[in-house]
Amino acid sequence: MFEGKTTGTPIQLMIENTDQRSKDYGDIAQSFRPGHADYTYMSKYGIRDYRGGGRSSARETAARVAAGAVARKILGDTIKITAGMVQMGSHKIDRDRLDWAETRKNPFFCPDAQTAEEWATELDAIRKAGSSIGAVIEVQATGVPAGWGAPIYSKLDGDLAVAMMTINAVKGVEIGNGFDAASLSGEENADEMRAGPDGKPDFLSNHAGGILGGISTGQPIVARFAVKPTSSILTPRKSVTLEGENIDILTKGRHDPCVGIRAVPIAEAMMAAVLADHLMLHRAQCG
Amino acid sequence: MFEGKTTGTPIQLMIENTDQRSKDYGDIAQSFRPGHADYTYMSKYGIRDYRGGGRSSARETAARVAAGAVARKILGDTIKITAGMVQMGSHKIDRDRLDWAETRKNPFFCPDAQTAEEWATELDAIRKAGSSIGAVIEVQATGVPAGWGAPIYSKLDGDLAVAMMTINAVKGVEIGNGFDAASLSGEENADEMRAGPDGKPDFLSNHAGGILGGISTGQPIVARFAVKPTSSILTPRKSVTLEGENIDILTKGRHDPCVGIRAVPIAEAMMAAVLADHLMLHRAQCG
Amino acid sequence: MFEGKTTGTPIQLMIENTDQRSKDYGDIAQSFRPGHADYTYMSKYGIRDYRGGGRSSARETAARVAAGAVARKILGDTIKITAGMVQMGSHKIDRDRLDWAETRKNPFFCPDAQTAEEWATELDAIRKAGSSIGAVIEVQATGVPAGWGAPIYSKLDGDLAVAMMTINAVKGVEIGNGFDAASLSGEENADEMRAGPDGKPDFLSNHAGGILGGISTGQPIVARFAVKPTSSILTPRKSVTLEGENIDILTKGRHDPCVGIRAVPIAEAMMAAVLADHLMLHRAQCG
Amino acid sequence: MFEGKTTGTPIQLMIENTDQRSKDYGDIAQSFRPGHADYTYMSKYGIRDYRGGGRSSARETAARVAAGAVARKILGDTIKITAGMVQMGSHKIDRDRLDWAETRKNPFFCPDAQTAEEWATELDAIRKAGSSIGAVIEVQATGVPAGWGAPIYSKLDGDLAVAMMTINAVKGVEIGNGFDAASLSGEENADEMRAGPDGKPDFLSNHAGGILGGISTGQPIVARFAVKPTSSILTPRKSVTLEGENIDILTKGRHDPCVGIRAVPIAEAMMAAVLADHLMLHRAQCG
Repeated sequence: MFEGKTTGTPIQLMIENTDQRSKDYGDIAQSFRPGHADYTYMSKYGIRDYRGGGRSSARETAARVAAGAVARKILGDTIKITAGMVQMGSHKIDRDRLDWAETRKNPFFCPDAQTAEEWATELDAIRKAGSSIGAVIEVQATGVPAGWGAPIYSKLDGDLAVAMMTINAVKGVEIGNGFDAASLSGEENADEMRAGPDGKPDFLSNHAGGILGGISTGQPIVARFAVKPTSSILTPRKSVTLEGENIDILTKGRHDPCVGIRAVPIAEAMMAAVLADHLMLHRAQCG
Repeated sequence: MFEGKTTGTPIQLMIENTDQRSKDYGDIAQSFRPGHADYTYMSKYGIRDYRGGGRSSARETAARVAAGAVARKILGDTIKITAGMVQMGSHKIDRDRLDWAETRKNPFFCPDAQTAEEWATELDAIRKAGSSIGAVIEVQATGVPAGWGAPIYSKLDGDLAVAMMTINAVKGVEIGNGFDAASLSGEENADEMRAGPDGKPDFLSNHAGGILGGISTGQPIVARFAVKPTSSILTPRKSVTLEGENIDILTKGRHDPCVGIRAVPIAEAMMAAVLADHLMLHRAQCG
Repeated sequence: MFEGKTTGTPIQLMIENTDQRSKDYGDIAQSFRPGHADYTYMSKYGIRDYRGGGRSSARETAARVAAGAVARKILGDTIKITAGMVQMGSHKIDRDRLDWAETRKNPFFCPDAQTAEEWATELDAIRKAGSSIGAVIEVQATGVPAGWGAPIYSKLDGDLAVAMMTINAVKGVEIGNGFDAASLSGEENADEMRAGPDGKPDFLSNHAGGILGGISTGQPIVARFAVKPTSSILTPRKSVTLEGENIDILTKGRHDPCVGIRAVPIAEAMMAAVLADHLMLHRAQCG
Repeated sequence: MFEGKTTGTPIQLMIENTDQRSKDYGDIAQSFRPGHADYTYMSKYGIRDYRGGGRSSARETAARVAAGAVARKILGDTIKITAGMVQMGSHKIDRDRLDWAETRKNPFFCPDAQTAEEWATELDAIRKAGSSIGAVIEVQATGVPAGWGAPIYSKLDGDLAVAMMTINAVKGVEIGNGFDAASLSGEENADEMRAGPDGKPDFLSNHAGGILGGISTGQPIVARFAVKPTSSILTPRKSVTLEGENIDILTKGRHDPCVGIRAVPIAEAMMAAVLADHLMLHRAQCG
């Protein structure tokens, strides 16, 4: 930054962790928490920073959110990105009540106000039980013109897939209809077109989630991802120690029974980051 | 190749297309087929090779399968990769009958012989109706040691996600429990461990699909992806021409009502390619 | 290619080697030619295609020249790239006679007609002696606007350096004054500026070779590289065999006593390729 | 860092600039210093941080030196890297007196003690005259085994070329004999071999600078680069202002009449960084 402006070169953002809580890491240091990266990290490097998960901590996603804010500046005002939680456990929102504006009004970033209320009750019970639950996040980008992406390398859906899958605790990513497309017939899945007012086609549906053949259609880009339930729970689970002894382990500390909620701003950030890359890739090649 | 051996440098594979069928591309040339990349490709480049889909054709996946064969050579014999079709339309296999050896015995690469027979009947009806149907493919790799991947950049699940999502017609990718993980509690989703015979933990389940925090656990790597129904169908769909006129379009020619079947060897190839990359990345850093 | 046009996606060029000469590779196969990559290639891979140098052959540069032709199409007509040989052995051209148009008129691509004639006599003697000689190639690009490149990553001079250094037999690369800059004072080396007619500065000299701080100045880009003498000579040199026995080796076959001459079109091609990359990098970021 | 050890993941080094000197940047802010990146940076980005050169400042090389220290840890003790200044202005060292141990004993990092003394006198005069002078730096790495690098992509000499050329103020890079190779005959330039004690060849010379065909020979890697004279001099030079007016400009402040001296540790660092990359690339492919 210089005189309030960027200077064209890499931007470094630095977030100081001012919310560290000193605590006894004894149990965590000596054993592998199920569902966490403890064992895999140790397998790879032979050393592990056990304080709060170290490099494997989802604190890393703070950097993604910060980068996403920069990416949105590059994208400008015509591209709007909104994410929300559309499923908690097996309880999905009612799509008939979907209103993206609601996502800013409830603590679940839920686009369906009524479901948000029901989730509040459900999550309270889960928290009290010392348990946790998974979720599905949906993220949309409107205003992306047709033509971003590429037919083989740098496919737009491929880049979104890796961007979303690398968010901590994510186990699945889909575009448009996603896994539901498996159950559809070709007639159902086809996004039909009619001549639009400006010479461009109007699509009559958006099963494709705004991407065909790795390239944007001009419709909203729609991605969805599944977040597994929080692995740190108060119910003891079987594990082993560093020395290979059996142990039962439970994870105290901050208890966040549905980490999916926190993934909503990350989803928006990753969508913004991928689109900013593609804006530049497209401009590089197609001017 | 030199004296029957590779020479350490890039390998070029060349596949000649000996199965071209000359035909009248008139309709395809002048209008955009719904579900295909016709419109998006034209939006990007302003030109389109309409013969068989051009660059957007799934013929490209032949190169992936060929590359996968090379990748398997790098991986050696201890890593076994097997894929199969586990869902056609909404009809899933019965996991109690799952036998991966079956995948080589039926034309669906289906690991459940009975379901394969039922699919044969169903697909015949779909073909006769000029329709098409989607599918879900599952791919497993056994013998991958714990420690491949990385906690942030080059996460193993992230690289699998982009590898699978970029296969033509794929709309979703998941690892392990994938989207079902959203509905699980933390207790259910945790892969518990007990001390194993060689000092390494024995996992009591594999909800994680063999990857935690972007790094392999030593369990089987399990990925799954959804393939949309074939877009080329004999039922007319609404579209527009290059000139922006409304048109109804149906796609004659080879009719392949479930392209998901063809994605099975591609799934194995992409798994092999990603693992070969990670073998080398791991060896580079960790020796 | 489709209907005489590129389709926006990667361009594959294929050059068949129709000038292979079958010959006895016995000596080459069993021993390491000094100055060639024989020993290093074998050290790396444990195998070596000895026919004409295999992967290490300068035949590879045919691909560079072909790619350069494509790169020039991207650059358009305002950017002109010309290379020439400016030194053979210790005999440099006379800069007072420099005329780039001459490079197309003599077999040395020499921009000084008189020196070209003298070289012809000198090279004839070198050929008859079964010896060889090195050379220096200079390549210029005019019409490159100010602003291409970057201050740290993707410096324009850095990218030119790797592009030129990787040409077979090249042992040094310089930009502008290059190694002579070491002997200059700051006053001499400074490219002074005066106000130009269009608001842009007119540079009074071009010691910088058109690049300051990794970014183009708008002046001609000037690079130069040294090519070592042909390693294949008819004078026996001491070497060892694969089995570690001493041997004296001379290389028969095509005798090309100054490979530097052949590097001239490669220099132009590599300049074009680097500039085409930077055109796109610049457009991506700066629009 | 965790418990005094790295954790396998990216290492961040942060160097605070505690030596800023507040001064009036008025002249620098409003005009372009000849030889600096002022004009080119402004041409690219339309904005420029003029304080000490901003992003184009050689302060950036502090990061390279820090990274080089990490790279040396990766390389281990068998690989030794030493750089020195071998030419100041047109005054070269006497190679008969070359002793690399001397580089740590004089302020020029000069491997020839007598020349260092002479330079001291010469540089004093240059400083008093408000002038500056260029230099040539040589860097060697011993202990690099044969086989690092690659025949086309990732050539070791190519990677060294870009590493060295991107150091601030560098205008030329050479390997082994470098530009002098142009003047040699093939007989002179050939590094002859005799059978060595361990089955490997003993090279009788090292004109190649330890690299043939992009791959290391096992001999010392030798690179050299030219540093232009310091652009900030006390003698006024012609320039233009941001508004396009003619101006004469001189640069006060820290006066460092031979920046080449400061490039010596950077040379070692960049050699270490390139070799550490190649150690890992080689291990990845060749085990």
